[in-house]
Amino acid sequence: MKMKKSFASDNWSGACPEIMTALSDANNGHNEAYGELDDVFTARAKQKFVENFGEGIEVFFVYNGTAANVLGVSQIINPYHAIVAAHSAHLNEDECAAPEKFIGCKILGLESPDGKIMARQIRPLLKSIGFQHHAQPKVISISQVSEMGTVYTIDEITELADFAHSNSMFLHVDGARIANAAAALNTDFKSMISDIGVDVLSFGGTKNGLMFGEAVVFLNKRLALDFEYRRKQGMQLHSKMRFIAAQFERYLTDDLWRKNAAQANYLAKHLEKEIRKIPQLEVSQDVKANGVFVCLPEKIIEKVQEKYFFHVWNASPQGKDGMKEVRLMCSWDTNTEDIDGFVELIKQVLD
Amino acid sequence: MKMKKSFASDNWSGACPEIMTALSDANNGHNEAYGELDDVFTARAKQKFVENFGEGIEVFFVYNGTAANVLGVSQIINPYHAIVAAHSAHLNEDECAAPEKFIGCKILGLESPDGKIMARQIRPLLKSIGFQHHAQPKVISISQVSEMGTVYTIDEITELADFAHSNSMFLHVDGARIANAAAALNTDFKSMISDIGVDVLSFGGTKNGLMFGEAVVFLNKRLALDFEYRRKQGMQLHSKMRFIAAQFERYLTDDLWRKNAAQANYLAKHLEKEIRKIPQLEVSQDVKANGVFVCLPEKIIEKVQEKYFFHVWNASPQGKDGMKEVRLMCSWDTNTEDIDGFVELIKQVLD
Amino acid sequence: MKMKKSFASDNWSGACPEIMTALSDANNGHNEAYGELDDVFTARAKQKFVENFGEGIEVFFVYNGTAANVLGVSQIINPYHAIVAAHSAHLNEDECAAPEKFIGCKILGLESPDGKIMARQIRPLLKSIGFQHHAQPKVISISQVSEMGTVYTIDEITELADFAHSNSMFLHVDGARIANAAAALNTDFKSMISDIGVDVLSFGGTKNGLMFGEAVVFLNKRLALDFEYRRKQGMQLHSKMRFIAAQFERYLTDDLWRKNAAQANYLAKHLEKEIRKIPQLEVSQDVKANGVFVCLPEKIIEKVQEKYFFHVWNASPQGKDGMKEVRLMCSWDTNTEDIDGFVELIKQVLD
Amino acid sequence: MKMKKSFASDNWSGACPEIMTALSDANNGHNEAYGELDDVFTARAKQKFVENFGEGIEVFFVYNGTAANVLGVSQIINPYHAIVAAHSAHLNEDECAAPEKFIGCKILGLESPDGKIMARQIRPLLKSIGFQHHAQPKVISISQVSEMGTVYTIDEITELADFAHSNSMFLHVDGARIANAAAALNTDFKSMISDIGVDVLSFGGTKNGLMFGEAVVFLNKRLALDFEYRRKQGMQLHSKMRFIAAQFERYLTDDLWRKNAAQANYLAKHLEKEIRKIPQLEVSQDVKANGVFVCLPEKIIEKVQEKYFFHVWNASPQGKDGMKEVRLMCSWDTNTEDIDGFVELIKQVLD
Repeated sequence: MKMKKSFASDNWSGACPEIMTALSDANNGHNEAYGELDDVFTARAKQKFVENFGEGIEVFFVYNGTAANVLGVSQIINPYHAIVAAHSAHLNEDECAAPEKFIGCKILGLESPDGKIMARQIRPLLKSIGFQHHAQPKVISISQVSEMGTVYTIDEITELADFAHSNSMFLHVDGARIANAAAALNTDFKSMISDIGVDVLSFGGTKNGLMFGEAVVFLNKRLALDFEYRRKQGMQLHSKMRFIAAQFERYLTDDLWRKNAAQANYLAKHLEKEIRKIPQLEVSQDVKANGVFVCLPEKIIEKVQEKYFFHVWNASPQGKDGMKEVRLMCSWDTNTEDIDGFVELIKQVLD
Repeated sequence: MKMKKSFASDNWSGACPEIMTALSDANNGHNEAYGELDDVFTARAKQKFVENFGEGIEVFFVYNGTAANVLGVSQIINPYHAIVAAHSAHLNEDECAAPEKFIGCKILGLESPDGKIMARQIRPLLKSIGFQHHAQPKVISISQVSEMGTVYTIDEITELADFAHSNSMFLHVDGARIANAAAALNTDFKSMISDIGVDVLSFGGTKNGLMFGEAVVFLNKRLALDFEYRRKQGMQLHSKMRFIAAQFERYLTDDLWRKNAAQANYLAKHLEKEIRKIPQLEVSQDVKANGVFVCLPEKIIEKVQEKYFFHVWNASPQGKDGMKEVRLMCSWDTNTEDIDGFVELIKQVLD
Repeated sequence: MKMKKSFASDNWSGACPEIMTALSDANNGHNEAYGELDDVFTARAKQKFVENFGEGIEVFFVYNGTAANVLGVSQIINPYHAIVAAHSAHLNEDECAAPEKFIGCKILGLESPDGKIMARQIRPLLKSIGFQHHAQPKVISISQVSEMGTVYTIDEITELADFAHSNSMFLHVDGARIANAAAALNTDFKSMISDIGVDVLSFGGTKNGLMFGEAVVFLNKRLALDFEYRRKQGMQLHSKMRFIAAQFERYLTDDLWRKNAAQANYLAKHLEKEIRKIPQLEVSQDVKANGVFVCLPEKIIEKVQEKYFFHVWNASPQGKDGMKEVRLMCSWDTNTEDIDGFVELIKQVLD
Repeated sequence: MKMKKSFASDNWSGACPEIMTALSDANNGHNEAYGELDDVFTARAKQKFVENFGEGIEVFFVYNGTAANVLGVSQIINPYHAIVAAHSAHLNEDECAAPEKFIGCKILGLESPDGKIMARQIRPLLKSIGFQHHAQPKVISISQVSEMGTVYTIDEITELADFAHSNSMFLHVDGARIANAAAALNTDFKSMISDIGVDVLSFGGTKNGLMFGEAVVFLNKRLALDFEYRRKQGMQLHSKMRFIAAQFERYLTDDLWRKNAAQANYLAKHLEKEIRKIPQLEVSQDVKANGVFVCLPEKIIEKVQEKYFFHVWNASPQGKDGMKEVRLMCSWDTNTEDIDGFVELIKQVLD
């Protein structure tokens, strides 16, 4: 049974063929567990990160994005600190309070219609610094790509990093879709992350063709001290580590990450273009990466979902006709026929 | 490059061929994420658990054994409770304080030369019950297979379950090697777990041929209430859940679990037999499953480790000649040649 | 040296004379520690709570309001739950993330210009229920008196309790100034709390004449199960418990609580009346209890603070002339001369 | 009603007269809350600590000993670290797992018949350092006076401090009875604590005549960074701080601490002497401070407890005749008549 394509999320897709091959190749006899020194897969994967991010970094593999975000941030703040993030940030809204549980800290959510936050929104929060009754703002966390499908420019990230550092804070990037962002900006990880002052990055892969695994990248080695214990205590140390490492080694070879991300981004642009041709619909966010946010008339939603599933993002009435905003995600394996079939169906149902 | 076999741990082996095939087969287009209702892989895998454990259970997939143990226990106790376990229990010694961090509880470690604990050792701890200054004993956690390679009999588990329940406590089983135990006892999971009163089981697979993934099995559905939130907050919800589910579906089909475990157990017995023939060595624990604990003269250890790696378990002088106790683990892929080569090497080095 | 009166907070005042006498009387030889069964002070104080709240309750003493709030709520929710509260709630803004640290939960803050929240604001949050990625709303926490000096009517609390219970949630009341509220509504604790469905109450005393100590009142005894262990683990078990108990026994005798609160409330009303006579000032919140929120011209603030300290509540420009909102708190020991002197000074400085 | 004296614990006594006077004196009008800069009581009390411990220290007041221990240690370790302590340490056995809950760490308990631990017992634990599966030993915590009434010599503490520092660890002292220890050694706090390398001290007062309150003393100011937020988040910031500060100011004036402690110690010695005269009894620990551990025939225990309550410490049969070990604590208000009456009663009951 071939399963139907969906626009629900890029994690409804499977693993890409190159990754499956890497997993098979790694499944070759015995290998040291836990990514210890003699595990060559882990050593080679780490080297790939150095090639992509530059010297002086430190990288650790964990199981998923929740953990990459929570453990990465837990490393640089204390429980009495606060994380500053967009209210819509995955870290704030979609982790079932994992940061609060594991770190013990507070998250200060900022309003952000396009999913991005700016230094001027953060400045008023600094008045809490030194006031013992308030959690102390210590890290800014942004999502690149943002939860609304938008992308920070390199200048915008630079400004946030500078603001953070000039206020004794850190900058964390939730990069669940970092490949899509780099592809969208037509840049590389070093330019978008390492060179401009990001402190910690959650480097995602699962949404872009991996089977499982995520990486925590400390752009400054000093911040990584003792992280191996935190990871173990955080229940994120994989015994058969080679199977995460081998995926990342391949992912960072021959720009596989970019190939997959560019495909998803391209199809999102194509989808946007087709949707803009339909007068009853309204694209509600800038399409920069692999997500398209669209307002649809309520009555057609369920009918379309029957064939191509997607999530309603905002069920409150939107726009001129009380439409609902939905999110349409493209993946590394989305293709032109998927888009065309989907758009065709919308047109039929609208008639 | 074919990697050398080792006796370090059963997690130095890879994934078995049947599991690799199951992963490939599951990698077929789009599928609902997070194991939600429309994910057929998860539904089928859960059904396999019901077939093996009986009706009325509830099962959840997590990434690894640390998480299965910690989240499973966190579900049935409060932070002011205590876990009673062997001092050598993985939960106590080898999780870098993950239970303390995530649950906030205390672990009361009992001396246990053979890795097994008995009700009579637990009874004196009950005097803390009702004394507000002491953490309150609430769950007994045993490892089946134990950390010393021994195996609880069904009667012994029954006694512990009865003791627990008659004192308003629960019984948790760390089943990282539960398949090896069932194979050793020539029994099935229902008889060894469900029918005799175990409350929560960490059902391991990674040490017996899986690539990643572990299951938390609540033998009583009522104990599972809200566990999905705890798993998410515990950073253990996999988005591409089908890849864990598909492994477990296959693992529980045609008794693959037993085939793999029996092979490892058989080789351990074979290894024991060969070692007993060498007068300078001393088998230090009952060999019941896939681990062999042996006292070796210190001088030969490093030389043998060069070709077949294994861990020194107890570096303090043991036995008559100040030997060191080492642990030799067999895996699903250990074969007769591995044993013979290893034993041959020992003999050479001893000369 | 007699210290200057202030309007900074009701916790800048000392202990009232009756409480000092009660402490002296309790300091009489040896007494069982930790509030155990033979501690007659604790037994008598608990009985006073029963007299004031009715049968079927359970009460525990802790050190301060932070602990009463955090421990009380921790007893009725799990870490994956969310607390719903006004954004300005002390629990959300002024506990340096103590709830997040101790409970591990998320707080969902609601906008509330007058410090009070309503059921219709909470309803939209219920859409998270059953969605495993979101913390699950489980308790509504209100402050009575609110942080803006306003007071919930009995009908309003009833509505919130009903809403909570009909959605499987609980209602917690932060009663740091519960006496001021009861005095303001001219009611008693049973009518305002027990009879209308409040589940857990933080019963404050320190802001109304006590030296230290706060009580957690479970209006339903079943909710109190095992709370003694939670209190100890929460570092809130006082050894010389009689000294908290004796204060509460006296506080709840002869309506001392009402006498103190009524005095503070009365002076706040008096202060409000005098301020309304000054055309340049603007009372910014309903004065219901012992706090008066006023917009003052920025230029006079520092001069007045030199003699009578108070806190600027909102430094953003307010009202027609870019004034700043300040909070003026009256205490059990505030008197008419304090008010008159203060108002006189304002008039002088304004000239 | 004058309550009966007891030998149950030094916290069954009340507050000493000097402390009651200090509390009354401090209850004088308004005073800045939370120990902020303008609170003269807190400033003066801190100065007293500097006088007693030397320059360069930092001190914070909390409510009780549980909090002083847990917050003090939490400041110097991370959750993946381990505390090394005597198994009988209050921190390990009698805090209902508060350290595990608040810090998230593990406690490694050492056997210690006399309540004291030595460096040579700790050395074997260091093998865990660098092994990512084990909590990392980071702080040694000793109780001075120990839980068995014994006292570390200055040399012994020095040795532990040196051992800790030469292994990148810290030394914490639980000083619930630190005054009794200093009186017993006829020394001062600077010589016993500051000068020999202790890093953090929980400085107790409640067991020696205070009503409530405990101090966390960082002997090295650098270790105190941000502790104010940790205290607030730990629910230990008292609003009416002057009432703790005033007690400590008085306690550290004119060596009130020594007067009270010396009285208790003296009476314990007297009690020991009298008990040694009774052939059926057996003093089971060195009497160094204010506690006397004695083995009593089981049959007399309840009868004596009716008039003078005390706790059975070890209910297992002890010594030649299957006696039980009990703990007899003297307090600042124990007097010769109490001892004589108690000893007389024992003699009567034994006949």
